[in-house]
Amino acid sequence: MTKNLIQFVSILFWTLLIVPADSRASDHPKVILTQDGVKKIRAALGSVPIFDQTLAKVKAEVDAEIEMGIDTPIPKDFSGGYTHARHKKNFFVMQKAGVLYQILEDEKYAQYVRDMLLQYEAMYKDLPLHPKERSYARGKLFWQNLNDSNWLVYTSQAYDAIHDYLTAEQRQRLEDNLFRPFADHISIDSPQFFNRVHNHSTWGTAAVGMIGLVMGDDELVERALYGIPFDKIDSSAKDNDGGFLFVEGQNAGFLANLAEPFSPDGYYTEGPYYQRYAMSPFLIFAQGLHNARPDLKIYEQQGEVLLKAVDALLNLSDSNGDFFPLNDAQKGMSYHANEVVTAVNIAYLVGGRDPRLLSIAEQQGQVLLDDAGIATALAIAESQAKPFDKNTVKLADGPDGKQGGLAILREPSQDIEVLFKYTSQGLSHGHYDKLSYSLFEKGDEVLQDYGMARFVNIGQKGGGNYLPENSTWVKQTIAHNTLVQNTSSHFQGKYEIGSQHHSELHFFDDSNPKVHVASARESNAYPGTDMLRTMALINSERFEKPFLLDVLKVNSGSANQYDLPHHYLGQIIDTNFDYTRPKKLSPLGSNNGYQHLFLQGKGKPTSSTSQLTWLSKQRFYTLSSAVDKRDELLFAQLGANDPEFNLRQDPTFIVRRKRTKDTVFASVVEPHGNYSYVTESATNAKSRIMNLAVIHDDDRYTAVSITEKDGQESVFIVSNADAGATAQHELQLGSQRYSWTGPYQYFE
Amino acid sequence: MTKNLIQFVSILFWTLLIVPADSRASDHPKVILTQDGVKKIRAALGSVPIFDQTLAKVKAEVDAEIEMGIDTPIPKDFSGGYTHARHKKNFFVMQKAGVLYQILEDEKYAQYVRDMLLQYEAMYKDLPLHPKERSYARGKLFWQNLNDSNWLVYTSQAYDAIHDYLTAEQRQRLEDNLFRPFADHISIDSPQFFNRVHNHSTWGTAAVGMIGLVMGDDELVERALYGIPFDKIDSSAKDNDGGFLFVEGQNAGFLANLAEPFSPDGYYTEGPYYQRYAMSPFLIFAQGLHNARPDLKIYEQQGEVLLKAVDALLNLSDSNGDFFPLNDAQKGMSYHANEVVTAVNIAYLVGGRDPRLLSIAEQQGQVLLDDAGIATALAIAESQAKPFDKNTVKLADGPDGKQGGLAILREPSQDIEVLFKYTSQGLSHGHYDKLSYSLFEKGDEVLQDYGMARFVNIGQKGGGNYLPENSTWVKQTIAHNTLVQNTSSHFQGKYEIGSQHHSELHFFDDSNPKVHVASARESNAYPGTDMLRTMALINSERFEKPFLLDVLKVNSGSANQYDLPHHYLGQIIDTNFDYTRPKKLSPLGSNNGYQHLFLQGKGKPTSSTSQLTWLSKQRFYTLSSAVDKRDELLFAQLGANDPEFNLRQDPTFIVRRKRTKDTVFASVVEPHGNYSYVTESATNAKSRIMNLAVIHDDDRYTAVSITEKDGQESVFIVSNADAGATAQHELQLGSQRYSWTGPYQYFE
Repeated sequence: MTKNLIQFVSILFWTLLIVPADSRASDHPKVILTQDGVKKIRAALGSVPIFDQTLAKVKAEVDAEIEMGIDTPIPKDFSGGYTHARHKKNFFVMQKAGVLYQILEDEKYAQYVRDMLLQYEAMYKDLPLHPKERSYARGKLFWQNLNDSNWLVYTSQAYDAIHDYLTAEQRQRLEDNLFRPFADHISIDSPQFFNRVHNHSTWGTAAVGMIGLVMGDDELVERALYGIPFDKIDSSAKDNDGGFLFVEGQNAGFLANLAEPFSPDGYYTEGPYYQRYAMSPFLIFAQGLHNARPDLKIYEQQGEVLLKAVDALLNLSDSNGDFFPLNDAQKGMSYHANEVVTAVNIAYLVGGRDPRLLSIAEQQGQVLLDDAGIATALAIAESQAKPFDKNTVKLADGPDGKQGGLAILREPSQDIEVLFKYTSQGLSHGHYDKLSYSLFEKGDEVLQDYGMARFVNIGQKGGGNYLPENSTWVKQTIAHNTLVQNTSSHFQGKYEIGSQHHSELHFFDDSNPKVHVASARESNAYPGTDMLRTMALINSERFEKPFLLDVLKVNSGSANQYDLPHHYLGQIIDTNFDYTRPKKLSPLGSNNGYQHLFLQGKGKPTSSTSQLTWLSKQRFYTLSSAVDKRDELLFAQLGANDPEFNLRQDPTFIVRRKRTKDTVFASVVEPHGNYSYVTESATNAKSRIMNLAVIHDDDRYTAVSITEKDGQESVFIVSNADAGATAQHELQLGSQRYSWTGPYQYFE
Repeated sequence: MTKNLIQFVSILFWTLLIVPADSRASDHPKVILTQDGVKKIRAALGSVPIFDQTLAKVKAEVDAEIEMGIDTPIPKDFSGGYTHARHKKNFFVMQKAGVLYQILEDEKYAQYVRDMLLQYEAMYKDLPLHPKERSYARGKLFWQNLNDSNWLVYTSQAYDAIHDYLTAEQRQRLEDNLFRPFADHISIDSPQFFNRVHNHSTWGTAAVGMIGLVMGDDELVERALYGIPFDKIDSSAKDNDGGFLFVEGQNAGFLANLAEPFSPDGYYTEGPYYQRYAMSPFLIFAQGLHNARPDLKIYEQQGEVLLKAVDALLNLSDSNGDFFPLNDAQKGMSYHANEVVTAVNIAYLVGGRDPRLLSIAEQQGQVLLDDAGIATALAIAESQAKPFDKNTVKLADGPDGKQGGLAILREPSQDIEVLFKYTSQGLSHGHYDKLSYSLFEKGDEVLQDYGMARFVNIGQKGGGNYLPENSTWVKQTIAHNTLVQNTSSHFQGKYEIGSQHHSELHFFDDSNPKVHVASARESNAYPGTDMLRTMALINSERFEKPFLLDVLKVNSGSANQYDLPHHYLGQIIDTNFDYTRPKKLSPLGSNNGYQHLFLQGKGKPTSSTSQLTWLSKQRFYTLSSAVDKRDELLFAQLGANDPEFNLRQDPTFIVRRKRTKDTVFASVVEPHGNYSYVTESATNAKSRIMNLAVIHDDDRYTAVSITEKDGQESVFIVSNADAGATAQHELQLGSQRYSWTGPYQYFE
């Protein structure tokens, strides 16, 4: 950090020295790509492989677009349609063409940008609101201001690049008829969009700020930084996703957006899918401010949160680099996305030149064609890259880091990862899934989170927008690997209630390399019911692979029905209990997501430990559950009440416990063995566990024993009350006296 | 072939020259690994990477086994269990240890084989039949003679390798108490197993023959080659898979097995999954005969069918090297299997040193540790490998090549492959799927064949054996992409009937590089109903990718209900017709496989072309069907009447046409576009086709028109009667006169 600070100050000093404020207007490009960056790039051309490859690819893409000719169609479509896709393509290509003009000094790229901008200028003057009326904040080029803001963030950079190529008259026309009215529309005309704390507003403020920096318009920059003056606000107004537009007493503008959604650990409250998306405007505008308004010390804001956020984002990916699906998230999104290339390159340049970032950039296989990109590419060419090792980590949620958080338990040598969620609601894209978890092996889902019911940019599916099943299934509690009480969702599935609460970390302990544990409590999801869930990833030498021990303690003032779903993926291989399958399939319930599940089978425990073994991606998994003989074991499959086949028809297995106040659900998810379709050999196809039992439970301690098939036994005890790291504990269980220090102990 | 013959003769000459018959007994090893091969290997050690790597891997495996100690447990389990797995492992390891002894001259390997053999000898003397009684031909070490035969094929090689290391007394004991009784049990004691024409008998005869060659026992070799004298046979007796044991008038023995199941093109009538398995004993024993009985000219038998079979087998793999699932077949089996390493290495050595085989061996990444392996490895080290390009090909079925066959239509540049099946029944592993097809893109299934309902060697699933659903679903016609009449299977699903018939090739034409066509007729599956199906893979410049045109002409003397299922995989994106989904799911029928399908939705055409678009593996596909307005469009999903979750819950889409005598089902399966989860962009997500129509149909011609969305039209005409390559045709359709030469024409 000291090194980082020294570097920051030196860049700042240098920037102030060579770019006097009064001459800035003639020093384009200056916002993202700078004159100095251009010099460095031109000097290095042909000698930095990853940069040269990216340049060649971008050149080929832009040349093909120039060949095809310019099209700025009258706006008409949703995100799956032609006009949307064309305008989106246009701003990306303009930004790239601007960069090519600067690097290659070929005027055809400047001409292309100029001609397209003038075409937009001619159209924009008289352009009405976009004809699609669905958005709470309609744009003009696109159906929502969000996309219009994307356009301006990128187009500002194109304008910066060709600024000096244009005549004064052309600049005047563009600024008067296109850029300033465009900025006004997404801000002054759209306070419900611009003045929020939300990723939409981040894009909006970045867009206004970027064009302000390029135009040298301080008023626009101020508007971007601090928002527009609050008029009357409607605190019950919501956006299309059900999120509140305004919160009483909240600030607005880019700086407020920077302060609010990131925790001190750099976790973005909506989750990594949206963090990836939101990081772009944060980092692009921050980089613009870093270059053009060094006085703001933008990267030092909020404890260097933007740099921490890049680190947190990368940590929120599985071993393939795919982001964990938290809240609404399209699966398959990964750190290969362009937005993360931006984040990694900028963080490398301004964040102390962390060599671990270079190994990510290498995997990304491309760099930015600007100051950050050339710095990254040069360092890679000099073999400075180091591995980005991902370890067990916790990330706090909330602007003050006090609204719960996430724990990622990892056993890197075996590629087992557990994502345990005890966050706040996560704004409008949040799910009602307190204390839920997902499990991964080698980046493949073992127990999944659904993700989202949306086919982004596939027009045939609801215009590429969120589908109704996102609310009726995806956000509901039963869609997650966590407890459902009386078939209702947490907080009654109401955003108004959920957004007032968050879970609490009980303890996190990764001090034992063999046992990583996180424990968290939720007391508000079901008023009157307290849940304490302890997840332990245990790497025992007696087991082939690490296994997950899940101890979920429930206390309630009333008798309830509890459902604990397990969203496994794969083919059922075996159970140790009997079940029957109905001839006809009916939905498992009528609301809260249950209406989407067909009941496929119903079983009863035949012993105190129920086991389900399945095969997925050529690997075996066994779920062992400590059960009561009255428990019901339900097999279900998605697809009911889904009139347009919007849902994947995935399976789930539910342990149902009826008429119970206090109880403990103890489970082990045990990855084991593998199967080869080529040698047709199955190794270690059976669970090692014979019995799993809750051997003690009171307010102070819960103890679980695991008996293996060869008779060996281990005991896990968690302290439910005092989680102090140095607290001394003793517990007598039968003839055995257990004593230990700290919040838990694993007696192997 | 001349070169091949010259080489064969020279090897023959050389063999006769240096191995006088009377001294053979002292010239071990001589059957697969030869003394000359050992010399070559020792000379090359350390300089042939792929050989050295394989040797290192095998050595590590055998060393670990030696470390663990010898276990020859009393036989007890089915194929998923320990004793089965252990005895199986034992014979593989003995064969490898024998090879290591020869190559590395380390006596510990010979001791290991000796000790294990003596342990088997001690046990075998008093060993009763295997306790599991399921097999029609029970073994002693394993539950079926098939596995006992596997044991003897490999153990013979181990014995050959350490023959000279043993004392004469040890050899006598092993031959008297183990090998000869073992050979007698699987032959004389088991004529129902040994005297068939079936892959079981291939293993059985190879086993007896191999030990006969090693022991120098001509009687055993004769028994292997020609079978045992026929006693009374029961022509209605069947094996566990429902196959007949004996066929009146059929010869027995290895040579009869060689003559019968392979077609002149080298296609094995059970399909590539079993061909891969069956090739091992064919080639191992053939190689033994080649070395020890050159007088038989074994590789020249049946028009060099064994060498052609290797080529056919490799051609029956998709672009990933996975074998096409034809008849009963476990998906994922590929040319990486050890059996295919054997096949490729031996075919390389004795089949004219085809350099294309070397590229397959490179992909396999391992070679045999014997004469064939070292020859292959040396050639690879000398960079002689050439690509094994797979093109459109047809393979005849039947010993005379006159029992129908298969066509594989390929467009290699786009990795589109169509497998069209018009074979005979394919013995007991055959399916009732005349004129069915599967479609692949980049080796991924687009329209699938189910494969089989069996989890090979996964004990929890029915002991690893065929599951009941293999008969009730997998073999039934509705499980395939072909026509079902009145919800009954072809030949009433009866093997006795199906095995008497085969489809007939109408024509095959790959002369036009843009259009590859195969057409075949089936007249026996439903007596009184004639089906002529023409599959054309068309690579039009107006389409992004090649598409499949499927014209299925049906003529019947009676009115029937026809179902044409499409076993697509993926997520439904769009339809151009309306459908409703039932609240509760019921089975679609009560037998012939329909009892396993839940009806998920029912639609009616809203235009003359019904379209279904789905997304799979990030690619879009549209099925366009020319429909009648009375047709029903059914969505179904597997899983009904499946009490133990043995079936994958895959979807299907059925076009149902009721109360119809003569009709044409015209369909296009159109691969298009792609989707990226990282850029979230969808390209070409919609079909190019607006309308598909049958514009003419009579006994002589069927014509189909395809109208694209921009109005362009193409017409495909097939000659239903005269398929001569030089036949002249003319057809007037409206104002247009079409004239062409040959069995079909595509007017673009």
